[in-house]
Amino acid sequence: MRIVRTIPELRAELDARAAAGERRVGFVPTMGALHEGHLSLVRAARAENDVVVLSIFVNPTQFTEAADLDGYPRQEGADAALAEGAGVDLIFAPEAAELYPAGFATTVHLSGPLTETLEGAKRGAAHFDGVATVVSKLLLAVRADAAYFGQKDAQQLLVVRRMVTDLGIPTRIVACPTSRDEDGLARSSRNVRLSEAERDQARAIPRALAAVEAAVATGERRVAVLARDADAMLEAAGIRPEYLAFVTPDDLTPVREVAGPVLCAIAARVGDVRLIDNVELAPSGPAPDTKE
Amino acid sequence: MRIVRTIPELRAELDARAAAGERRVGFVPTMGALHEGHLSLVRAARAENDVVVLSIFVNPTQFTEAADLDGYPRQEGADAALAEGAGVDLIFAPEAAELYPAGFATTVHLSGPLTETLEGAKRGAAHFDGVATVVSKLLLAVRADAAYFGQKDAQQLLVVRRMVTDLGIPTRIVACPTSRDEDGLARSSRNVRLSEAERDQARAIPRALAAVEAAVATGERRVAVLARDADAMLEAAGIRPEYLAFVTPDDLTPVREVAGPVLCAIAARVGDVRLIDNVELAPSGPAPDTKE
Repeated sequence: MRIVRTIPELRAELDARAAAGERRVGFVPTMGALHEGHLSLVRAARAENDVVVLSIFVNPTQFTEAADLDGYPRQEGADAALAEGAGVDLIFAPEAAELYPAGFATTVHLSGPLTETLEGAKRGAAHFDGVATVVSKLLLAVRADAAYFGQKDAQQLLVVRRMVTDLGIPTRIVACPTSRDEDGLARSSRNVRLSEAERDQARAIPRALAAVEAAVATGERRVAVLARDADAMLEAAGIRPEYLAFVTPDDLTPVREVAGPVLCAIAARVGDVRLIDNVELAPSGPAPDTKE
Repeated sequence: MRIVRTIPELRAELDARAAAGERRVGFVPTMGALHEGHLSLVRAARAENDVVVLSIFVNPTQFTEAADLDGYPRQEGADAALAEGAGVDLIFAPEAAELYPAGFATTVHLSGPLTETLEGAKRGAAHFDGVATVVSKLLLAVRADAAYFGQKDAQQLLVVRRMVTDLGIPTRIVACPTSRDEDGLARSSRNVRLSEAERDQARAIPRALAAVEAAVATGERRVAVLARDADAMLEAAGIRPEYLAFVTPDDLTPVREVAGPVLCAIAARVGDVRLIDNVELAPSGPAPDTKE
């Protein structure tokens, strides 16, 4: 496994591999602090490609809070070992100046509910501008056949898909299931910043989501009821969510009934740590006779 | 020569040619109403590539005046004949819905003087947003080795270069000299909308630019003097320019002296028609001892 720091080095390595017949490239963009969730993306990429590239870049432009950026865990040595173990061929770990050199002036911006609701509303418009801009740059640098993203960041996945479709970036975007610890908590690099007590608290988030799923499975369709019960479970753990949303999974339109696929998404601060999680709800039984 | 309307058709045609060994692609993006200026770009592309693609798309998002968009000349039959005569292999002439389908949400935005001064100040921020977005989409669709732009739209060329560098779009941007009619007027699709009297008036624009060049060649360095004389020539023809600017050619910073390369740019309305033109000034003689 090699680690490269610049786009020319990355291109040289990938072009050499392509010349040797290793043409199919899978790409896993990360901000480092790798955990099992990232490694599940690497394994998905490994299964479908000749070459697996993983990027590590804590992108400053998508952070809207200085403390969150400063506190974001960085551990490149450990990351490299984990990545190599999971089958990564090439790590691209640029400095900020490699991606944003002096004179850099371009922002890839998406308008509408995909970027303006939920995370966009809470973290500010700069967040998804930062995400869309850095992901477009990474995709154009790696020129992968497929790039792998976790469903935990469901809204980010929608934004990336929309951006890739809109600009016509020739990379397939693959969604991978949320990876969870044994206690149900969605894996996140930020989890290491939770104290033991906070981690206990945080477990209420996947518990509330699981309760919503279970209620839907037993026939509950009313979002008001589902939300009230989930809120009560969060509140019992001392969590007041930033949002608890029931929206269409393709365009994030709020719904009042689970009549088709619905994304149930939660964001909450536990101590200083901001956590997000979601499940996709699908009503079982006969198809509803009303259109979304 | 073929005309294709969709990106999949374009890709199929280019992929087939690449498979047959025609790998080097040159691209000339246009809004149609082809004239000798466009054909000079085609010839530059023809000389360096296996395949020459010309796009015809009157991009609605870069027009900030409805009348200018509605009045923009459209003549696809004549354009196809001219393009074929000059050596175009493939015309890409999409409908707006092909480039901006329902749900389209992405804008490529550049901030700073490149987009906020001169044309950006006069036509509004939406103009260069429209340009950068459509050019990024076209470049990613054609995946050309090189794309050819006219120096007449000097600021557009800077914006495109900056966007391509910033996002890492793997296409070389080639600047070609402004093409002029025998009377000196810079060729533009909008010129056909000038009456004979207006055309006479419009000639004052290249005359003023030529006078500035001549004055610099004979040693005048003071922008205040150059601008006063150029303004007088324009005013004598009844033209009050939207701007008459002396700026650095790389970042459009205003200068007070022609101590290094300087872009002298004019925008003016003649009748209903908005015209732009420019020259690059280079002081002759010993290098100046002051830095820009």
